[in-house]
Amino acid sequence: MQLQARIPVAVLGATGMVGQRFIEGLQNHPWFELVAVAASERHNGCPYGEATPWRLPNSEMPASVARLPVVTCKTEATPGIRIAFSALPAEAAGEVEVAFARAGVAVFSNAKSYRMVPDVPLLIPEVNADHIAAIMQQRKQRNWQGCIVTNANCSATPLVMALKPLQLSFGLRKVIVTTLQAISGAGYPGLPSYDILDNAIPYIGGEEEKVESETLKMLGTWQEGHGFVNAPLVVSAHCNRVGTREGHLECASVELEHDASPEEILASWQNYTPEPQALKLPSAPAHPLLYRHEPDRPQTLRDRDAGNGMTVTLGRLRRCPILHYKFVLLGHNTIRGAAGGSILNAELCVHKGLI
Amino acid sequence: MQLQARIPVAVLGATGMVGQRFIEGLQNHPWFELVAVAASERHNGCPYGEATPWRLPNSEMPASVARLPVVTCKTEATPGIRIAFSALPAEAAGEVEVAFARAGVAVFSNAKSYRMVPDVPLLIPEVNADHIAAIMQQRKQRNWQGCIVTNANCSATPLVMALKPLQLSFGLRKVIVTTLQAISGAGYPGLPSYDILDNAIPYIGGEEEKVESETLKMLGTWQEGHGFVNAPLVVSAHCNRVGTREGHLECASVELEHDASPEEILASWQNYTPEPQALKLPSAPAHPLLYRHEPDRPQTLRDRDAGNGMTVTLGRLRRCPILHYKFVLLGHNTIRGAAGGSILNAELCVHKGLI
Amino acid sequence: MQLQARIPVAVLGATGMVGQRFIEGLQNHPWFELVAVAASERHNGCPYGEATPWRLPNSEMPASVARLPVVTCKTEATPGIRIAFSALPAEAAGEVEVAFARAGVAVFSNAKSYRMVPDVPLLIPEVNADHIAAIMQQRKQRNWQGCIVTNANCSATPLVMALKPLQLSFGLRKVIVTTLQAISGAGYPGLPSYDILDNAIPYIGGEEEKVESETLKMLGTWQEGHGFVNAPLVVSAHCNRVGTREGHLECASVELEHDASPEEILASWQNYTPEPQALKLPSAPAHPLLYRHEPDRPQTLRDRDAGNGMTVTLGRLRRCPILHYKFVLLGHNTIRGAAGGSILNAELCVHKGLI
Amino acid sequence: MQLQARIPVAVLGATGMVGQRFIEGLQNHPWFELVAVAASERHNGCPYGEATPWRLPNSEMPASVARLPVVTCKTEATPGIRIAFSALPAEAAGEVEVAFARAGVAVFSNAKSYRMVPDVPLLIPEVNADHIAAIMQQRKQRNWQGCIVTNANCSATPLVMALKPLQLSFGLRKVIVTTLQAISGAGYPGLPSYDILDNAIPYIGGEEEKVESETLKMLGTWQEGHGFVNAPLVVSAHCNRVGTREGHLECASVELEHDASPEEILASWQNYTPEPQALKLPSAPAHPLLYRHEPDRPQTLRDRDAGNGMTVTLGRLRRCPILHYKFVLLGHNTIRGAAGGSILNAELCVHKGLI
Repeated sequence: MQLQARIPVAVLGATGMVGQRFIEGLQNHPWFELVAVAASERHNGCPYGEATPWRLPNSEMPASVARLPVVTCKTEATPGIRIAFSALPAEAAGEVEVAFARAGVAVFSNAKSYRMVPDVPLLIPEVNADHIAAIMQQRKQRNWQGCIVTNANCSATPLVMALKPLQLSFGLRKVIVTTLQAISGAGYPGLPSYDILDNAIPYIGGEEEKVESETLKMLGTWQEGHGFVNAPLVVSAHCNRVGTREGHLECASVELEHDASPEEILASWQNYTPEPQALKLPSAPAHPLLYRHEPDRPQTLRDRDAGNGMTVTLGRLRRCPILHYKFVLLGHNTIRGAAGGSILNAELCVHKGLI
Repeated sequence: MQLQARIPVAVLGATGMVGQRFIEGLQNHPWFELVAVAASERHNGCPYGEATPWRLPNSEMPASVARLPVVTCKTEATPGIRIAFSALPAEAAGEVEVAFARAGVAVFSNAKSYRMVPDVPLLIPEVNADHIAAIMQQRKQRNWQGCIVTNANCSATPLVMALKPLQLSFGLRKVIVTTLQAISGAGYPGLPSYDILDNAIPYIGGEEEKVESETLKMLGTWQEGHGFVNAPLVVSAHCNRVGTREGHLECASVELEHDASPEEILASWQNYTPEPQALKLPSAPAHPLLYRHEPDRPQTLRDRDAGNGMTVTLGRLRRCPILHYKFVLLGHNTIRGAAGGSILNAELCVHKGLI
Repeated sequence: MQLQARIPVAVLGATGMVGQRFIEGLQNHPWFELVAVAASERHNGCPYGEATPWRLPNSEMPASVARLPVVTCKTEATPGIRIAFSALPAEAAGEVEVAFARAGVAVFSNAKSYRMVPDVPLLIPEVNADHIAAIMQQRKQRNWQGCIVTNANCSATPLVMALKPLQLSFGLRKVIVTTLQAISGAGYPGLPSYDILDNAIPYIGGEEEKVESETLKMLGTWQEGHGFVNAPLVVSAHCNRVGTREGHLECASVELEHDASPEEILASWQNYTPEPQALKLPSAPAHPLLYRHEPDRPQTLRDRDAGNGMTVTLGRLRRCPILHYKFVLLGHNTIRGAAGGSILNAELCVHKGLI
Repeated sequence: MQLQARIPVAVLGATGMVGQRFIEGLQNHPWFELVAVAASERHNGCPYGEATPWRLPNSEMPASVARLPVVTCKTEATPGIRIAFSALPAEAAGEVEVAFARAGVAVFSNAKSYRMVPDVPLLIPEVNADHIAAIMQQRKQRNWQGCIVTNANCSATPLVMALKPLQLSFGLRKVIVTTLQAISGAGYPGLPSYDILDNAIPYIGGEEEKVESETLKMLGTWQEGHGFVNAPLVVSAHCNRVGTREGHLECASVELEHDASPEEILASWQNYTPEPQALKLPSAPAHPLLYRHEPDRPQTLRDRDAGNGMTVTLGRLRRCPILHYKFVLLGHNTIRGAAGGSILNAELCVHKGLI
């Protein structure tokens, strides 16, 4: 797809870690042009390059962004934008995102605020692209020109991507998942180094609840005139923080509706060719799922950057003596699980003519 | 209990990490006197202090041990000992441990070699003290004066300690457990730093199989004239290595035979007062199980040293939407899960008059 | 020395990391009784155990302290105390510490605020115990009943302890020192884990200046009627943050006034028996300096807890081809370099009859 | 420069960490074609992909290399090659490298074995490109068709690059340098994780001596008919290991022959445009030296990959109260300090017609 002109976009919450991942992901984007960076009042008017240092270790602040003045998260401060990528914390996201949607802006949000709202899609283009139908109802009901589209918690996202082909091919009944999550998931400054060096922490506030509920919505269906219906599935999550920089590693045990051979499971993953790949959306990785056959993969350090952080890596498929199968999956939490996922969501909506 | 004279003991495999934990644990032991340190041929005759540096960060090599000449792992090299604590790798343990047992020495082993053998107890004094009855049969059948008593894999040990009160009070059907294991579990030199810094590895060779099988034996029963009978239980394990120094953190989901309230579960742990505590064995911690009510405990760094590394810390008990309950447990892998466990096993056997 | 009754003391800034080190160090102290914990307004009246979690990994919050109500850092909020240990940040310390001193309280401070003030001792009992003479002048000049005694920056402290015997025996001209400092030096929450995992940061704001200036004052002299005179010494510091929990490792090159043999240098350290050890002050370690002969010591992890964190460990003495000698030193930054140092200062002042 | 056909090359010691960095750096090289991977006997004949896993976290084993059979490090096993990149350990390098040189192969070595030999260049193309003149004498004297060219220790390399412009502009008298070196410098498996997690180790065997001597040779001159003459400079090094994956951070204090202003120092670095950049050698980074003005840079994590690991990053220039200046520098130890440096050396020699 070739656009006539790039769409002007803003990043809300641009000084945080996910905000910077948005800036990174939007650099040289073929469809989107970053024209505004918005953050809290105290940075107002300050050039982005003076408002905050760049926190991401493997890239530099784009010079063009360094010069952009930081504006406030108000619609009048970002005239002309058609898309807002929101990295706002939930406290701020609630009001701001609605204001932008009402003002005609398509908001792609990482906050939890609207994820579970009945007319808001919780979108992973490779999983539930058809959920964007909710946008029509959202606009109609709320009398918005814009919209709010959310992406899921950074642990739920790669899990759902791994589960979708299983659900399609064999049906899914039960999932027990234990996560080993990276420190970047806590944002910046986030986790004090004194808390995590030589430590593992078996608790992340609210995380297990999100994994257990968001998964059902994403694997569920959108029924026109009725709304979202959860997938008939039960998920139980244990969420842990470990001392890795990026990448959430997850150990899953699943019970299927119809048992299958390991080869069939592998085939369901390997043959999975969802819409974003067919459409060649700019941020869609060649392989949304990649199965590694080495016995000790995926590993956080080695596999998190697969597909520029947009590929979910799978491995260690084996029989579970209690549920049917167990396996390991890994996704990049601040790319696929946050900024990259939102950008892909926006690309899908643009392609579908919703923006 | 007061012994007339301390029992002379040896450590086999004394230069490795668990070997040093044995030396540490035997220092100033009221019942045991370390008189011989045995290791591979190449150190033969060399004073221990020259054969190896001390690797444990929070203690120093005892001066008396530094002067001991390293001997080979042969019975004739350790005359007079009545107990051998074995930290030998499985390859070496097979032959050596049998030779010592045949020579009249009670061998307390950390190796996997004999753990699943029908007349060898896989012992945790707080869990299955009655399994020492197998020693009688072992001696009779094999015509040994000595014996071999094993302790379990360092992940299985704290899991079994957490499960035992549940089994006693409510019955146990299913356990799904995911571990976050410390680097010391791989011994020394063990895991290269290049493999684990900023990484998590979802694979430890043979570990899941051990957790799944050893648990059944330990929670099973010894039936006189018949042998060990596994507990009627299914265990499914995911084992991971993370960048922590000591302490295996485990996330467990369990299905009971009879459902119970959270208060009943807690009570089963808190009221658990097994034999070693009643007997006040020297290495028995005041609390074999300790439940922490903070939402984010146990943590590897903060709880591993509870009870001098002999207490298993529990926390985060909550309903599991798939099995009955989920919770977190933590045990010190090279103390409770290795050397400290073996020493406690020996104390039990001495107390029971088996040595 | 035996006191008739323990002296009532308070900790100011009790909820921070150094505040907790004070609480830890005062537990069961033979001379001091912690009767008040003071912190910022927002915790006022709240039991300490509810105001903050315990952050130190190897100890638990003392139950008696958990019950103490947190009070504000005002003299009227801590009636009856005779000593205040201050872990306040410099912003707050300026006013508060003076108020307490004016109210008759002896303040032992970790803040930088008054370290370089002409009538305030910057005290390390093993180094410059005679500097407490400044307290007399301080009281006279300012008309205080109390006083302010400071301890140095956590990097300067162990350096000065290592240098003092060299200064005494050989004279000192030049010191170039490069530090590898632990994350706890930045307090809590302090350094974000995202900034330091797999990283080293060659900058700590203001630290090099402190090391370069405080060292001169501490190694200088107090001249009655005149004041402090800096030691005739030049110090150049490079300060780095590395990913260790506790313990500042420092690489020093020194030029002496009179060259000496390595044996003489070692002897100057080993024979150094300063006053606190002679007086057997409760917090004085048996060995303020400990030289390790292994080629790879001191190491942060292995040596930081020497002497309960109060011993400075030395090693690797060798000729420097540019200055005379180079060597390595290590001190525990939140114990010897902060709370433990302050407590020892107070012990000295009590012993000298100043409190 | 455009070659008619790519030059066939081998990697000796191809299964180690630096060996894999060579393979990575040679992939798609415009001048060199990797045709042979040589390692120890035990892998002989085995496809590289089966002989060893890939250890580098951010790349994959090239498929073409995975299929190459591993051969022994003998000249007859690698027929047709004209260049051998050696990542052999010093024990093996001694004999093997000479054998290849005698057989007509140009050997580019990372081993210390021949670095200080009088007719062997210790080469950094940006620093002492003219030292390749020694090759002519080496060939003549030894009657070799091939040659041995070495690159320096991974700590000495970035230091020398930072010093060269200072030497050229102002003369250099003294350098005191303290390093914070990454774990990859110890090779693979290298440093046990148990030794370095939460630790810093102030000792790396032989490293300080190498930094102190190699620097003098590299900054010295090649005098035709006479040989290498060391630079009239004294270097004193403290070498430390810290828990970072890649990148050696170094704190240097320098005394110049002629003092200069900070602006002049900066200008000497910024205006430094040595030959490899002018020649646009394929592996030469656009900027061999990059000065960062932020107060807290360079940082190991953030700057090590500058210029694909071939740029040395500088920062924190400030007056030293003892020598003239102090500053910080950082270089990637397994790229610029090892494989990348060797490849650049080979490129220079090819360009100069020596191969």
